Amino acid sequence: MGMIGGSLDAFIGAVHRRGSQLDGEIELVCGAFSSSAEKSRETGAALYLDPSRVYGSYKEMILKEKELPEGERMDFVSIVTPNHLHFPAAKFALENGFHVVCDKPATLNLAEAKELKKIIDSTGLIFALTHNYTGYPMIKEAKHLVDSGELGEIRKIIVEYPQGWLIDLVEATGQKQAAWRTDPARCGAAGAIGDIGTHAENLAEYITGLEIDELCADLTIFVEGRQLDDDGNILIHYSNGARGVLHCSQICNGEENDLNIRVYGSKAGIVWHQMDPNTLIIKSRDGGSRTIRTNVGSLSAQAQAHTRQPAGHPEGYVETFANIYRNFAFALRARWEGKTPDPLYDFPGIDEGIKGMAFIENVVKSSRDNKNKWTKFEI
Amino acid sequence: MGMIGGSLDAFIGAVHRRGSQLDGEIELVCGAFSSSAEKSRETGAALYLDPSRVYGSYKEMILKEKELPEGERMDFVSIVTPNHLHFPAAKFALENGFHVVCDKPATLNLAEAKELKKIIDSTGLIFALTHNYTGYPMIKEAKHLVDSGELGEIRKIIVEYPQGWLIDLVEATGQKQAAWRTDPARCGAAGAIGDIGTHAENLAEYITGLEIDELCADLTIFVEGRQLDDDGNILIHYSNGARGVLHCSQICNGEENDLNIRVYGSKAGIVWHQMDPNTLIIKSRDGGSRTIRTNVGSLSAQAQAHTRQPAGHPEGYVETFANIYRNFAFALRARWEGKTPDPLYDFPGIDEGIKGMAFIENVVKSSRDNKNKWTKFEI
Amino acid sequence: MGMIGGSLDAFIGAVHRRGSQLDGEIELVCGAFSSSAEKSRETGAALYLDPSRVYGSYKEMILKEKELPEGERMDFVSIVTPNHLHFPAAKFALENGFHVVCDKPATLNLAEAKELKKIIDSTGLIFALTHNYTGYPMIKEAKHLVDSGELGEIRKIIVEYPQGWLIDLVEATGQKQAAWRTDPARCGAAGAIGDIGTHAENLAEYITGLEIDELCADLTIFVEGRQLDDDGNILIHYSNGARGVLHCSQICNGEENDLNIRVYGSKAGIVWHQMDPNTLIIKSRDGGSRTIRTNVGSLSAQAQAHTRQPAGHPEGYVETFANIYRNFAFALRARWEGKTPDPLYDFPGIDEGIKGMAFIENVVKSSRDNKNKWTKFEI
Amino acid sequence: MGMIGGSLDAFIGAVHRRGSQLDGEIELVCGAFSSSAEKSRETGAALYLDPSRVYGSYKEMILKEKELPEGERMDFVSIVTPNHLHFPAAKFALENGFHVVCDKPATLNLAEAKELKKIIDSTGLIFALTHNYTGYPMIKEAKHLVDSGELGEIRKIIVEYPQGWLIDLVEATGQKQAAWRTDPARCGAAGAIGDIGTHAENLAEYITGLEIDELCADLTIFVEGRQLDDDGNILIHYSNGARGVLHCSQICNGEENDLNIRVYGSKAGIVWHQMDPNTLIIKSRDGGSRTIRTNVGSLSAQAQAHTRQPAGHPEGYVETFANIYRNFAFALRARWEGKTPDPLYDFPGIDEGIKGMAFIENVVKSSRDNKNKWTKFEI
Repeated sequence: MGMIGGSLDAFIGAVHRRGSQLDGEIELVCGAFSSSAEKSRETGAALYLDPSRVYGSYKEMILKEKELPEGERMDFVSIVTPNHLHFPAAKFALENGFHVVCDKPATLNLAEAKELKKIIDSTGLIFALTHNYTGYPMIKEAKHLVDSGELGEIRKIIVEYPQGWLIDLVEATGQKQAAWRTDPARCGAAGAIGDIGTHAENLAEYITGLEIDELCADLTIFVEGRQLDDDGNILIHYSNGARGVLHCSQICNGEENDLNIRVYGSKAGIVWHQMDPNTLIIKSRDGGSRTIRTNVGSLSAQAQAHTRQPAGHPEGYVETFANIYRNFAFALRARWEGKTPDPLYDFPGIDEGIKGMAFIENVVKSSRDNKNKWTKFEI
Repeated sequence: MGMIGGSLDAFIGAVHRRGSQLDGEIELVCGAFSSSAEKSRETGAALYLDPSRVYGSYKEMILKEKELPEGERMDFVSIVTPNHLHFPAAKFALENGFHVVCDKPATLNLAEAKELKKIIDSTGLIFALTHNYTGYPMIKEAKHLVDSGELGEIRKIIVEYPQGWLIDLVEATGQKQAAWRTDPARCGAAGAIGDIGTHAENLAEYITGLEIDELCADLTIFVEGRQLDDDGNILIHYSNGARGVLHCSQICNGEENDLNIRVYGSKAGIVWHQMDPNTLIIKSRDGGSRTIRTNVGSLSAQAQAHTRQPAGHPEGYVETFANIYRNFAFALRARWEGKTPDPLYDFPGIDEGIKGMAFIENVVKSSRDNKNKWTKFEI
Repeated sequence: MGMIGGSLDAFIGAVHRRGSQLDGEIELVCGAFSSSAEKSRETGAALYLDPSRVYGSYKEMILKEKELPEGERMDFVSIVTPNHLHFPAAKFALENGFHVVCDKPATLNLAEAKELKKIIDSTGLIFALTHNYTGYPMIKEAKHLVDSGELGEIRKIIVEYPQGWLIDLVEATGQKQAAWRTDPARCGAAGAIGDIGTHAENLAEYITGLEIDELCADLTIFVEGRQLDDDGNILIHYSNGARGVLHCSQICNGEENDLNIRVYGSKAGIVWHQMDPNTLIIKSRDGGSRTIRTNVGSLSAQAQAHTRQPAGHPEGYVETFANIYRNFAFALRARWEGKTPDPLYDFPGIDEGIKGMAFIENVVKSSRDNKNKWTKFEI
Repeated sequence: MGMIGGSLDAFIGAVHRRGSQLDGEIELVCGAFSSSAEKSRETGAALYLDPSRVYGSYKEMILKEKELPEGERMDFVSIVTPNHLHFPAAKFALENGFHVVCDKPATLNLAEAKELKKIIDSTGLIFALTHNYTGYPMIKEAKHLVDSGELGEIRKIIVEYPQGWLIDLVEATGQKQAAWRTDPARCGAAGAIGDIGTHAENLAEYITGLEIDELCADLTIFVEGRQLDDDGNILIHYSNGARGVLHCSQICNGEENDLNIRVYGSKAGIVWHQMDPNTLIIKSRDGGSRTIRTNVGSLSAQAQAHTRQPAGHPEGYVETFANIYRNFAFALRARWEGKTPDPLYDFPGIDEGIKGMAFIENVVKSSRDNKNKWTKFEI
């Protein structure tokens, strides 16, 4: 694996490195960690990389690695830059024959995402998008419960993602994470909606399989001087008639990373909290409440395939990335061995990326429209 | 106290009786418990009332009691009927000189509520509305925290009230509670919104003091054959610029009575769950999280004045009614003694009733309007 | 009902009053609230009692009330004094023909408790002991689960009761509750063990039906100047071979009233926390975890008979007293009507009182013995 | 790193591999994964190791690696075998110049542990023991709170470790984990006490710094046919006068891995649950309750140094091993660079190992003694 972005002062780069190497299936062999060659070198050194494979730009990395003999050169790139670089880096990698793992959201805008899909389709290479929260065993179980009909017809989805780290103008203090996430040029058309709202939307669709028919959004910028939304609230009509409420925020003072989902069907409802990720509750009016826990009792093959520890030994955030990377590695290996990848080891790809970008654009459009109530969801 | 409604097979009548007599300040002396004289008699007997003071109708009760000598006759009526009888019963009681405690929502519609206010004002009598959830000590503390500025400027309110008891057509099975609550003639223009949405709205306004400027509502009837909404989701703009999300439902399968509120300000946020009512959490990005508990450490006078037990001895639903009844009794006593009632012992009245009815009408109006996004809140 | 003890500055008197009158089955008609006639009068006045039935001593009350015509005089006494007065007051009441409800522990020592049983047996009157925590619906359900074999053979019981209110010499500050509870003359041979350890022991025995065979106790006085234990830890061998750990404390800084029990059997285990009393968890290695909630789904008749509210409307401490008083009233009424009381409406009596006193004496004996490991439990 | 034990069907080997490679500081280069050469080969292949460095025995591995040139050979061994092999493997590694990371408990018995200390001292090499639970950031914070006096004088410790996976004779079903853990020859003198009781004891001592003065233990074998305790309950006197209760079990039906600790001091108490590891509660009677969370607000340098993710991104079990391995790697690197290791990056060593083995032996001794109450803790 070669990494694009993710120098030492970044956040998500280290997460991808830990996630990718947790299972010993993937080795980081090279990187272009920063637009600053100096920073890239420092990062490569700290990671004990061969200095000759620490590059000054992703283009250099891709071109040089391409020249290395097979078996020696990197097998794929991992893109962990700010959003605006996702598309050009992914495009260049794919067009030079490298598979891609990319942080979310897929691209800077919907047009790029559609274009990226074309490139992926034409090259036939593998593309994974790290919508990591769907990697939790209990989310696999939740999807399984919906798929197997245990919830009946889905009627209501409440998905929320309150955070509080942007309650003031952090981006003006030199905090790098805040700086690019609040900058339209690097982040795209939305702030909180793009950064975390897309996770919420992806989670709801992953579990239920429902698609948005129309939505009504209310985005706000609370912190003076900020250019992108730091709060968003959305009413949703799903295509099957289910109703949804999606709200996310980065100004919910004191909230950490409180992604939660509740799905209610005619037969039962489920509740899951990301901050207590190994617990899933299923309940119904007449049947009471059952607590499903990672690796306790009899679970679906899907949940088991994404579990590493015995019951009660907490698995967390890093394992969600590890699950995507490991499944991506399995898919790669299957390809090399001429086999069909096992659908048990799923991971998000460009279709989820396109939906995420469409979600951002539809939400922004709806929010800007203060007259019409419902915005038809268009891709 | 004389009770109107609340026969043995009702739910809320018994709650009012228990709440009113918990502190020994109020005694039930008479009642017109049902439109069936037979049922009323049975209820009176079960409550050990003097049979001569168990009446066949509220009019009879009010007129007969009025004739009794002062000190012997009831001091006030408690109205616990379905909604459509609130107004005529309250009007008749007030016009005959009796103070009133009334279950919420205040009346069948906004016009009645406004009319009722006029009658209250002209008679000068005391009217209490049992929006009981504001009677919890931790809600008093929450209001105190907001009032004293500990949250800073309020930016976001998330208030939710999912229940699951109406996931199917319970009203067709002869269940009395479901029957009148889903019948427009007895319940009013809204179902879930009227029954529980008004509690959510009242709770948010009580704690924050904010008023709704405009809203965008999406009400749904999920259960076939039902006439009133069993699910409602609302986006709110408060007058100070704060954003709100209010959702309530009676088809959230497996949910019991899950009234929850989160209020986020520039300085801190608070979280409260009705099903764990003696706990209030206050948190902020930099200050971390503090758990405030009923009767632990140093609390506001408001919280203390509504607490009966030492720390860790759970107080619950019945105490919220008791707090309203006791405070109402204190106001009555103050009046008799020519004193000004102590504002520490507050309770909701007709103004909250008007707001609740206006909330219902504005929400229904907004929901029916599928074109315009925002409905200006009008009273 | 006539009350002995429970003046305005007491704690448990008000709890008994609220509990007894919650359901409208019992009316407070007279009282001897304090050894100070002045205090007794003040209390009676605050409770709106007829001044002629507010007495200066319990003996006066019992003798005067006895002279009143049947139907007018009190039916029973409620004893809510410090422990040392339980026995003489109960004895005098019983010997003059009055039934008794008494706060726990039953008496000052085991000998008194045994003597009291003889008096109860010879008079044939009804005696209730307010071990209130067994009045929670979820405890009724827990007992039902054990009785019906859902846990299999019981192997281990962990019951704990940490409090923190006596972390310093509160009794020296004039705090009345602390003063008598730490005074051997009024409280008996044990402090924390008598006050709360007996609740823990009673709860374990009520749920499981197991009896203590032998125990090994370690009591400590942590606060200098205190005369009775403020901390106790006990290993228990139950008669069926089950192992127990019982610990209680009043110096667990920051703990409120944290009575908890876990019972593990060969088939399943249960967990209950008093501070979240409407939740009971049943779990097993292979079956996972089920959350049982007051009035949700299908529960035992025992649990239902002690529930007042719909699901999700918290019931708490006052209802546990109300359940004992109501059941006592039912037993009284059955007696008057010549019927057999319904065993569904159970309440603790003198047998539980004797066991509690024996528990105190055996624990104190074991703790004082620093040589022998096991103390055979003797009654 | 070379691994001893940890073939594919083992549990803890994979944990050590994941923990050691999470941060990219340590690389697995060789292994003797099983006493079966076949199994060892299979494991090595699955881990993509150079087949020439997959050995048939730990002796072979140590001798062969020793012959490799510096920089090429492994730097240390990681011992993840059943207990009885810890000592011989560690001894052989140390005597041949390799540093050691070893799973707990340190050895098969106390004598071996003492002997091991001598070898470590004489070779001057580094030895780490994976008492992993002390690697959680919130445990670092807890220790910091005690050390900095925020709890005052420690009075009471309740530490518990209930599990339920051995409720029946799992060891007879061919389950490898159960088989060696219940076999005295491979596991040592104690079952549950050795496997998990030592973790509980280590956790209590790590946080508080207190030492056991005397104890009173009650071990039981509940499952017929089992040779070692599956349940243990212990009263403890700490050297400063604090009281302790330690209980652990593997027959608590339905419990997963429920290691919990509560420490109460004169100024405050703390509560921590391993299954919710990123939360630490500190509370006091007068100050109320504060929830400390990983990476929220201002924490100690110790907690921060063991944290990888932003607030609300759950860290779990694998990170506790990673913290020990990373700190061990830092110590190794410091040694190579001639520097003093930074005490911030601490890890358990042979002293903790000796205490753990002494704990086992003293507890077993006390439990076998049914006459004398207190067993003086001897090392």
